[in-house]
Amino acid sequence: MAARAGTRSSALRSPAQIPTRAAASADVPGVLRTTRIPLLDPSPAVPGGFTPKAFVGEVVPFSVVSFREGHDVIGVHVRLTSPSGEESLHRLRARTDGTDTWTADIALDEQGVWRYRFEAFSDDFATWAHAAEVKVAAGVDIPVMAALGAELLTGAAAEKDRPAAQRKRLLTDAAALAEGDAATTSALATDAGLAQIFRDRPIATLRSATDDHVLHVDRVAAGVGAWYEFFPRSEGAKRMKDGTVKSGTFRTAAKRLPDVAAMGFDVIYLVPVHPIGTTNRKGRNNTLTAEDGDPGSPYAIGAAEGGHDALHPDLGTAQDFRAFIRAAQKEGLEVALDLALQASPDHPWVRDHPEWFTTLPDGTIAYAENPPKKYQDIYPLNFDNDPEGIAAEMLRVVQHWVAQGVKIFRVDNPHTKPLQFWEWLIRTVNAADPDVLFLAEAFTRPAVMRALAAVGFQQSYSYFTWRNTKAELEEFLTSISHDTAVYMRPNLFVNTHDILTEYLQFGGRAAYRIRACIAATAGPVYGVYAGYELFENVARPGSEENIDNEKYEYKFRDWHGAEARGESLAPLLRRLNTIRAAHPALRQLRNFSVHWSDDDAVLVYSKHLAAAFTGTGRPDTIIVVANVDPHSVRETTVHLDTTRWGIPLGESFEVEDLLTGAVWTWSDHNYVRLDAFTEPVHILKVRERS
Amino acid sequence: MAARAGTRSSALRSPAQIPTRAAASADVPGVLRTTRIPLLDPSPAVPGGFTPKAFVGEVVPFSVVSFREGHDVIGVHVRLTSPSGEESLHRLRARTDGTDTWTADIALDEQGVWRYRFEAFSDDFATWAHAAEVKVAAGVDIPVMAALGAELLTGAAAEKDRPAAQRKRLLTDAAALAEGDAATTSALATDAGLAQIFRDRPIATLRSATDDHVLHVDRVAAGVGAWYEFFPRSEGAKRMKDGTVKSGTFRTAAKRLPDVAAMGFDVIYLVPVHPIGTTNRKGRNNTLTAEDGDPGSPYAIGAAEGGHDALHPDLGTAQDFRAFIRAAQKEGLEVALDLALQASPDHPWVRDHPEWFTTLPDGTIAYAENPPKKYQDIYPLNFDNDPEGIAAEMLRVVQHWVAQGVKIFRVDNPHTKPLQFWEWLIRTVNAADPDVLFLAEAFTRPAVMRALAAVGFQQSYSYFTWRNTKAELEEFLTSISHDTAVYMRPNLFVNTHDILTEYLQFGGRAAYRIRACIAATAGPVYGVYAGYELFENVARPGSEENIDNEKYEYKFRDWHGAEARGESLAPLLRRLNTIRAAHPALRQLRNFSVHWSDDDAVLVYSKHLAAAFTGTGRPDTIIVVANVDPHSVRETTVHLDTTRWGIPLGESFEVEDLLTGAVWTWSDHNYVRLDAFTEPVHILKVRERS
Repeated sequence: MAARAGTRSSALRSPAQIPTRAAASADVPGVLRTTRIPLLDPSPAVPGGFTPKAFVGEVVPFSVVSFREGHDVIGVHVRLTSPSGEESLHRLRARTDGTDTWTADIALDEQGVWRYRFEAFSDDFATWAHAAEVKVAAGVDIPVMAALGAELLTGAAAEKDRPAAQRKRLLTDAAALAEGDAATTSALATDAGLAQIFRDRPIATLRSATDDHVLHVDRVAAGVGAWYEFFPRSEGAKRMKDGTVKSGTFRTAAKRLPDVAAMGFDVIYLVPVHPIGTTNRKGRNNTLTAEDGDPGSPYAIGAAEGGHDALHPDLGTAQDFRAFIRAAQKEGLEVALDLALQASPDHPWVRDHPEWFTTLPDGTIAYAENPPKKYQDIYPLNFDNDPEGIAAEMLRVVQHWVAQGVKIFRVDNPHTKPLQFWEWLIRTVNAADPDVLFLAEAFTRPAVMRALAAVGFQQSYSYFTWRNTKAELEEFLTSISHDTAVYMRPNLFVNTHDILTEYLQFGGRAAYRIRACIAATAGPVYGVYAGYELFENVARPGSEENIDNEKYEYKFRDWHGAEARGESLAPLLRRLNTIRAAHPALRQLRNFSVHWSDDDAVLVYSKHLAAAFTGTGRPDTIIVVANVDPHSVRETTVHLDTTRWGIPLGESFEVEDLLTGAVWTWSDHNYVRLDAFTEPVHILKVRERS
Repeated sequence: MAARAGTRSSALRSPAQIPTRAAASADVPGVLRTTRIPLLDPSPAVPGGFTPKAFVGEVVPFSVVSFREGHDVIGVHVRLTSPSGEESLHRLRARTDGTDTWTADIALDEQGVWRYRFEAFSDDFATWAHAAEVKVAAGVDIPVMAALGAELLTGAAAEKDRPAAQRKRLLTDAAALAEGDAATTSALATDAGLAQIFRDRPIATLRSATDDHVLHVDRVAAGVGAWYEFFPRSEGAKRMKDGTVKSGTFRTAAKRLPDVAAMGFDVIYLVPVHPIGTTNRKGRNNTLTAEDGDPGSPYAIGAAEGGHDALHPDLGTAQDFRAFIRAAQKEGLEVALDLALQASPDHPWVRDHPEWFTTLPDGTIAYAENPPKKYQDIYPLNFDNDPEGIAAEMLRVVQHWVAQGVKIFRVDNPHTKPLQFWEWLIRTVNAADPDVLFLAEAFTRPAVMRALAAVGFQQSYSYFTWRNTKAELEEFLTSISHDTAVYMRPNLFVNTHDILTEYLQFGGRAAYRIRACIAATAGPVYGVYAGYELFENVARPGSEENIDNEKYEYKFRDWHGAEARGESLAPLLRRLNTIRAAHPALRQLRNFSVHWSDDDAVLVYSKHLAAAFTGTGRPDTIIVVANVDPHSVRETTVHLDTTRWGIPLGESFEVEDLLTGAVWTWSDHNYVRLDAFTEPVHILKVRERS
């Protein structure tokens, strides 16, 4: 397997021959931290030394700061070793911003642990060519420059691993230079063929290299996907004549899968499917007492029927569950399970392992609490009581479901468990099966959210739902795409069963459209919770949560009826996922960039992927223009830095709205009119210029 | 509830007993990067892993990101080990900004290598006290909280290393709690004495610690000082009747020292004092041919009389030089020498070590050049020819002068020599004598300037001379004080023999006053080049360099006459250095902070030092308000965040202008009038409130 990049040169010497930085610490006496040509701030790197992440096909910016004293030219490479052991060498380009930063964009195409090291060298031919060119032009030192050139080419011709034809040419040129005349010197200093020979295989001295660094490349689903969350018990649930409800099952829920797949989703995520406790079971709308027939929160896990490795008997058998997974696979959907590491008072753990909980002086087990508040349907695990025993059990639970075919876990509230536990669990699970992915639901302080990502979570919920204004979105989307993308991959859920933001509550249907368009295009992973299509926007008063929350009851939804009445967002979701499938630029995280408009509610951004990475040989460029005020019509001018995708400022080009099919001629300044009620967002494809 | 969890003990265990992060790499199988309570981003730290710096008496912000799952209270310490092996433990405070960052400001009082590690623990008493307080108030769980408290105090009383009186008190309180009543529980949960006992010696569980980190603490002069640069040959030079000039000598130059000392300077820096080559000697104003009597540039080092270890015969003998050093010491001045590692064609190195230079195919030695430009009075060393030989000779040169009593070197153009060479040289010199300091004159790209500081230079020239507008100064001074202060100490020279900025050329005398006031107060190290007092502001046309540059000729200056005529800046410099000596806040780098004014030329900043660090028991706060437009009178309102030095917004306080003695009553919004021609800057001392 080879990495794909714009430029690649043939082999330099093997790493073993290159002097490297010999120590990680400045305090080893006599060992220097710097190499002959300095190579500083190698990236991708994660602050604190955690392992950087990428996913298969992700375009990763490699960069290093390198320079040397004086005016001689240097070259910089990055040497990659793929998980299967294949080496490749990629030339970096110096940025022109005076920062001495060298960069190369490289897409990695194999899952696993890659190694990389940067190598710098004095580029003796380029140094000579530059000096010879300007000195001949100035009429100084011509014989000396000719002689230096002859010496250099003669030396290169003696390098045994150069092809014979090349060596012959170099000797011919060296002989010509030995004549010492200005015309020959100038001609060879600027000869494209000679430059190419030395670009591919430089005359490289003062070779320097960094230590080896590592980069974990996950499977594509770690970084790209459209998620759909649902409660299987609601799908196919029936209200009986006596007023009771017959729960949906894995078999009835599976009937919903073709619709979800037809909308273009990749992952079907199920809230917990385990037995639910009855002690202190919560009633509808989070009331303290359940009534007969209330199904309880699926997060109050564990009952007489079993715990985290069991299935709720209402949903079906293990066989039914496996059939559900197969049905999903048939539709191209991968199943994600919820991993909520807590117990109802009825969980078998409470009986078999009371030492895993906190026992109070009165002999009772401590409920989850935020003093003085208590959550009496939940016992939290105490990870400091028998940590090895608890860790082993959690590993067993995960591996149980992995054995059933589940490779994605949405982890509930990971920030309420020790960080160290997650580092251990994810590493241990991935050592056996690197395909297993964990999504962190940590709606918490930034340092904690980021630390969870740094120690191993492959995806993270984020603050997306609470970033709604233009200014907020510009800052937020830029931050997740650039500042933290090397270790944190945000999954832009538009809503969850726990989160119904004020923006959605009060923004009407336009708000639902706007948020779906932004989530599906601004990042490569996004998700919706079932019901989003139906604009379910009534909250429990004073909360940011749906009224009649599905956590505590069954929901009955008329998907097809709503769509037939034109009251469903499903057609838009279908369209968005189709656009995502057709446009590789939308399946990248780090290519997000903000542009501008004169209106404080019109957000503008682009996603661009260079031709080298699209697989089609053509670049892919998407411009999104969104009116984020769901209550208004906005007319304004959009300002684009078209140079980011290689179009000079002022030049015109065609754009096609992928939502409506409209085609316009645009340039760097463009009029837009976005009516929140009819057409709040443009998703524009830049058509290639002929 | 962690009260029962894990192990507990009294006073913090010794480091050896605390589980640390065991590996620097995430890729050691089975070894976790995170501790039970995470400790992330420890600081002071330098990007790239270079060693952080401080100077004796510098207030260093220590910080670490630490948090734990759930609501239990944690505590964080930093454990310092001084160069002489003494351990101390300092409690950190959590910032209130939601970043989970813990900080402590600590002044280090011993030169050498300090070690530090952060330690976090679950603070079981604080957790109990908080829960007990709110639960008693809410009327829930009172017996349980009382019992938990009794258990906790009983356990603490059993810790053998607590004082007997304390243990007795804890047992008494435990017995009272065992009664289980609300009043006792509430009272003990909020008891100040009990809180203090556990603040000093917490009931600490889940102990976690970082690895050891190091911090180099240099002597004070590395971070604090006022520098004065001069050409000793000019001081006491005499124009003879025949028109020739008789050079000044170390003995005549020493006569200037009392004046320099009286102005309050700490360091007297001499441009190179070595023999000067005659081959291709530069004439006045950098002309290519010298005339008879032109002394040549002291940077064209080396002649028949010797090289870098020799003294120019015009200046005197080794004995004269040592006498100069003694005379300086007597005046409280330390001598700094120039270290310019290059050779005139007449340098003994050229004869004895032609291999240290670059020999061209025509047998000549290559001049310094930037093709096609050449500098024909200079041969650059080629550090890649015999690197060990060159390195040994440079070390010998430095050690030669160290043996003469020189402990400060101003290094000319370090960015034209290999970075690695400096890392090696400085480390090697400092291993033998940690008092030796190197100032990097690297007016080059930011990455290179910063790398030189990171590898060891104790001080750096910076872009200060080119940062003249309010906006530029706000950004620049903030950056040097915070972003890079952990490894780069800028020396704010207002001018040098090579730099006469347009601001000084065209800003009149006001410009000289403004720049001196800012340089002397914004950073703890600054400098002037002789002649600044005389407002020498005429440049060679088209250049940023003095006309009739002292590099190529003798200068005759009438210091006392100018001062007698009221045409000297010496009184202001004297005043500024007196203010610096009286105010420890001005002798710190990291305490710079920007405030605001409504005028785009009125710069406002403060330097504050808390009472704990001033040595007087009182805080020291200086506010500087500067009109940086040297051509105008500005009236405006200054806006201060007085909370930075502990004064609530809106409260009034007295300020005293340390330049004029004027006293005003100020608060957070204040009128100022700054006339560039008479009084461009206020340097205000905040008087303590009574």
